[in-house]
Amino acid sequence: MIEFEQIGTIHSPYNDLEGMPIQPAGAVGVRGRVEVLPDYVDGLQDLDGFSHIILLYKFHRGSGFDLKVVPFLDSSPRGVFATRAPRRPNPIGMSVVRLERIDGAVIDVLDIDVLNGTPLMDIKPYVPHFNSQDEVRTGWLGEKDSNVAVHRSDSRFR
Amino acid sequence: MIEFEQIGTIHSPYNDLEGMPIQPAGAVGVRGRVEVLPDYVDGLQDLDGFSHIILLYKFHRGSGFDLKVVPFLDSSPRGVFATRAPRRPNPIGMSVVRLERIDGAVIDVLDIDVLNGTPLMDIKPYVPHFNSQDEVRTGWLGEKDSNVAVHRSDSRFR
Repeated sequence: MIEFEQIGTIHSPYNDLEGMPIQPAGAVGVRGRVEVLPDYVDGLQDLDGFSHIILLYKFHRGSGFDLKVVPFLDSSPRGVFATRAPRRPNPIGMSVVRLERIDGAVIDVLDIDVLNGTPLMDIKPYVPHFNSQDEVRTGWLGEKDSNVAVHRSDSRFR
Repeated sequence: MIEFEQIGTIHSPYNDLEGMPIQPAGAVGVRGRVEVLPDYVDGLQDLDGFSHIILLYKFHRGSGFDLKVVPFLDSSPRGVFATRAPRRPNPIGMSVVRLERIDGAVIDVLDIDVLNGTPLMDIKPYVPHFNSQDEVRTGWLGEKDSNVAVHRSDSRFR
């Protein structure tokens, strides 16, 4: 068993899975607020120099998982690790968001695609040099990922 | 308290923190092997269509954390959330690696930058459309991130 602690809470306009954007690319301009618990505020120093940050959080709605899921962008069942489905063996979510401002324990962000009240576990700076890759293939997603900006969540991951 | 389970193990040539590349960009071509526990193998279906995958794992060496750390690429203390330091409030690691082949429960990967024996928590497909961002600023890292490929770990995060 691996144990973590909630270090803060992510606030967003989305109180329900239905109608929510399924990736930050579909949430451009949507404002969110990340509130870090007092014990961790000092760890935010220097973060404001980054234009984008990575939020790691717990998918707190829904429970359990299936090893095969039908993703939002597809009609065939796929292995859960080949998808971003929230109901997964360890329900860890990851979003890259735009950082707007940090004021004490509060981080204002843009392009947020997570549910209101989501428990925050970690924040990392987004560094393209570390993460971006050339010659990328995206398997079953193929052409479908161009639809990610307009696609919205439905009830399947409740 | 948030509880997760180990779903597999990451094997790499690095048995010690010292001399390890600090990001996949510094580990180009380094081979690793991700072994998923039998219960989760069915979740790997369709993953082989992706050229790159995201590994989420637990930094299992070292313990505790400081809210200010001196990163490998810098000489000033920075807020831990503005760094990728392994000793953090929740020691969750994230690496984008190249997928070479999947055979049953074993995923052969390239560009691995994690310690041998690292507990795996999640695998996600890497989709640039979801993650890559334009007009990125990287704060204190600034010009320093061009050194990431040659920089190596030392003993500071033991």
